[in-house]
Amino acid sequence: MSQKTESTQLPAPFCDGWFREFSSLWPGQAFTLQVDEILYQGRSKYQDIAVFKSKTYGNVLVLDGVIQLTERDEFSYQEMISFLPLNSHPNPSNVLIIGGGDGGVLREVVKHPAVKKVTQCEIDEDVINVSKKYLPSTSVGFQSEKVTVHIGDGLAFMKNHKSEFDVIITDSSDPIGPASSLFEKEYYELMKTALAPGECQWLHLSLIKTMQNFCKTVYPVVDYAYTTIPTYPSGQIGLLLCSLDEKTNFREPLYKFSPAEVKKFNLRYYNVDVHRASFVLPEFARKALYE
Amino acid sequence: MSQKTESTQLPAPFCDGWFREFSSLWPGQAFTLQVDEILYQGRSKYQDIAVFKSKTYGNVLVLDGVIQLTERDEFSYQEMISFLPLNSHPNPSNVLIIGGGDGGVLREVVKHPAVKKVTQCEIDEDVINVSKKYLPSTSVGFQSEKVTVHIGDGLAFMKNHKSEFDVIITDSSDPIGPASSLFEKEYYELMKTALAPGECQWLHLSLIKTMQNFCKTVYPVVDYAYTTIPTYPSGQIGLLLCSLDEKTNFREPLYKFSPAEVKKFNLRYYNVDVHRASFVLPEFARKALYE
Repeated sequence: MSQKTESTQLPAPFCDGWFREFSSLWPGQAFTLQVDEILYQGRSKYQDIAVFKSKTYGNVLVLDGVIQLTERDEFSYQEMISFLPLNSHPNPSNVLIIGGGDGGVLREVVKHPAVKKVTQCEIDEDVINVSKKYLPSTSVGFQSEKVTVHIGDGLAFMKNHKSEFDVIITDSSDPIGPASSLFEKEYYELMKTALAPGECQWLHLSLIKTMQNFCKTVYPVVDYAYTTIPTYPSGQIGLLLCSLDEKTNFREPLYKFSPAEVKKFNLRYYNVDVHRASFVLPEFARKALYE
Repeated sequence: MSQKTESTQLPAPFCDGWFREFSSLWPGQAFTLQVDEILYQGRSKYQDIAVFKSKTYGNVLVLDGVIQLTERDEFSYQEMISFLPLNSHPNPSNVLIIGGGDGGVLREVVKHPAVKKVTQCEIDEDVINVSKKYLPSTSVGFQSEKVTVHIGDGLAFMKNHKSEFDVIITDSSDPIGPASSLFEKEYYELMKTALAPGECQWLHLSLIKTMQNFCKTVYPVVDYAYTTIPTYPSGQIGLLLCSLDEKTNFREPLYKFSPAEVKKFNLRYYNVDVHRASFVLPEFARKALYE
């Protein structure tokens, strides 16, 4: 019989043909998706990995019980986490991605005309292999000749590659589990121009505030944007942006994608107006973060 | 034994201490909330009504199995559906609210300095009574001396009160059930300056497009905004805005709440920047609605 008490034990994620996304990070609420077929379930060195075919959201990647992406809406996150920082940098030639084992950020980053070289450091090779097999439209990013993949810990990699990259994008999972060190101050101190996933302003304002505060001790410019995405908790995800260049203004893109580029790059979420509007926070969040 | 087939029969909303929001309007996905206590369950002349105390979202009002509001995030919807149209009108003195039996839109509308008189037409008196009992912070709107409540059908009321109101706000439930007539062309033809809840751009783009198109045959100015709200399907809700005055520009508020007013009115979502940004749509939605 389990030693866990009822209050700490989360219900099983797959039940009666549905996937239920429970987490101590969003107590009392769970998004659920109807399952057509479980395609993969396994345990890597670091985490539980699952992929299922959903009824209405395409294939879905799940790490430690938490949805990382669905084929239907992943473009929102991948485009925004890529182009908010890339288009805020005068010459984002050499880019580092920490995490992002599904390949979706890679897919977007290599589209940018200024990007010449992309290094990806992913701790869990199984995530890459599973994504290549079950998420072809996302993992297509690995096929670019601009890409070098390194399997290993992001924090360690950063220590050995100082001042090498123009832009660093942290595409990690949640602050519990294998990605936890990516939410700590040491990590931010190691990054030069960095973008890291924040958290949802509806759920985790105090965590955002804490991260923003320690980023401000390292970077002269720190900002916060968000994007809507139905299958992330509460329907949105925040993005924390930091720059060592005090002239950086993340809110006004330096490089503006033309309508022709938006079309050519097959963008479905990001455009110049969306870039600007993504920094406008609801009054409660604006007040908590900026007053 | 039930005659319904498995594919058309939705699972029961309350199960194992959780509420699950199933609907044919969002197949294959369901938001769920943990239940502390079911406070009310009944059937009115028009619909099933339930109120439960949730673990983390306060009290929750449910009509025909669909979440209408939670005490934790209802302010987003109520503020945005009220102040987007009110602040776009030169003198919103006399306001009609169709639906809105919980009183939340009333609560916001009466805050506006220009609003002198508010008429509410709600078809289901039970919704008002249940809200007064279980949702005091929302139904507080009924206490204002500016308010007159009329119990009846919105379409019929509108036919008998032509050209009386400066602003009409339709705060209805979904396009199936008692509110279905509020999504049809006849209804829009009856309204003068009107705001009606649209649908989520992630789920119902073709319905939005259809409504927008028939609104354009009636109104010279039609626009679409959205607000984020965790407990609505996919985390957001759209708002369709129409005006008979061709000079109306919904995107730039005529009346701008000062920071002092935002504070005085206890606004937690709406401010001038949020007003402007709420019209900026993701590329996929912009393309579908405006190209």
